[in-house]
Amino acid sequence: MAQKGFTLWFTGLSGAGKTTLAQRMYDELKHKRGLKVELLDGDVVRTNLSKGLGFSKEDRDTNIRRIGFVCNLLTRNDVIAIAAAISPYEEVREEVRNTIGRDKFVLVYVNAPIEVLIERDVKGLYAKALRGEIQNFTGISDPYEPPKDPDVVVNTHQESVEESVRKILAHLEERGLLDPD
Amino acid sequence: MAQKGFTLWFTGLSGAGKTTLAQRMYDELKHKRGLKVELLDGDVVRTNLSKGLGFSKEDRDTNIRRIGFVCNLLTRNDVIAIAAAISPYEEVREEVRNTIGRDKFVLVYVNAPIEVLIERDVKGLYAKALRGEIQNFTGISDPYEPPKDPDVVVNTHQESVEESVRKILAHLEERGLLDPD
Repeated sequence: MAQKGFTLWFTGLSGAGKTTLAQRMYDELKHKRGLKVELLDGDVVRTNLSKGLGFSKEDRDTNIRRIGFVCNLLTRNDVIAIAAAISPYEEVREEVRNTIGRDKFVLVYVNAPIEVLIERDVKGLYAKALRGEIQNFTGISDPYEPPKDPDVVVNTHQESVEESVRKILAHLEERGLLDPD
Repeated sequence: MAQKGFTLWFTGLSGAGKTTLAQRMYDELKHKRGLKVELLDGDVVRTNLSKGLGFSKEDRDTNIRRIGFVCNLLTRNDVIAIAAAISPYEEVREEVRNTIGRDKFVLVYVNAPIEVLIERDVKGLYAKALRGEIQNFTGISDPYEPPKDPDVVVNTHQESVEESVRKILAHLEERGLLDPD
């Protein structure tokens, strides 16, 4: 069977586990299954697509649209695009989802209660945001709108990375986007 | 034979014919030959990648690097990327060429003497630039560095669009990037 392109989009708060899951999925699809996959994540996006953008709603929306534009180019050429971005606003997430096509878009809500993230605080960002040293920090001083209609929800405070990965793979196979391994 | 990805990059002054040639090549490769092709040109780039960038050297370089980044993602997944951009600076053009890989990058210099372009002036931009109503206009008030090592040179003041297209196709076939039609 020829490879189908789709976009696997991870949304969620900082520290919830988007990058970890996106990279695990990249390894699984690229290296284990030998598929064509690109990962658009944090540093890659900041360096190559979003330089100069800030954290206003307008700039965040521009950033998400831009990542979505690139995901769409890849997806419609039968490449799998994996994006990990806080993408806090429902409206622009849905805009990207509709542009790419809902049948080729997989929205994964990486969920964990903010209290857990504040306690984990691997990068120390929540502490800084709570002290007011970082402005417009999603979940603290900037809004996060949980997706109303996610395709998959992973609860990273309750399940292991491997459990989340299996859940996502099962969904992709169920939707016919991926052959069973 | 499986399709090979490559980047076909048109550089040249405003009005030299980059867009016309890029679109003709897109039609030829996409519609006539049924290949996977994406066209990154003027409006598409301005709307989806470059919003907020101006015409300083730094912003122009960022723009070119960003287009190059997207071309690279497509090329390395076996898609043909066609870019049409003034891309006036040798250094950043060469940077993109090396990142994508010189064997998968085809630099087309769309050449026409500035006097001819001033006379044609389809969009009236040269007149405005000469009156000082547009700042940083390439060829008038901003530099254009002709490529030192182009793969193909098309002289649009001397040859027809069809002649230029045939020249480019012949080069692609010679390099083994395209099967003979």
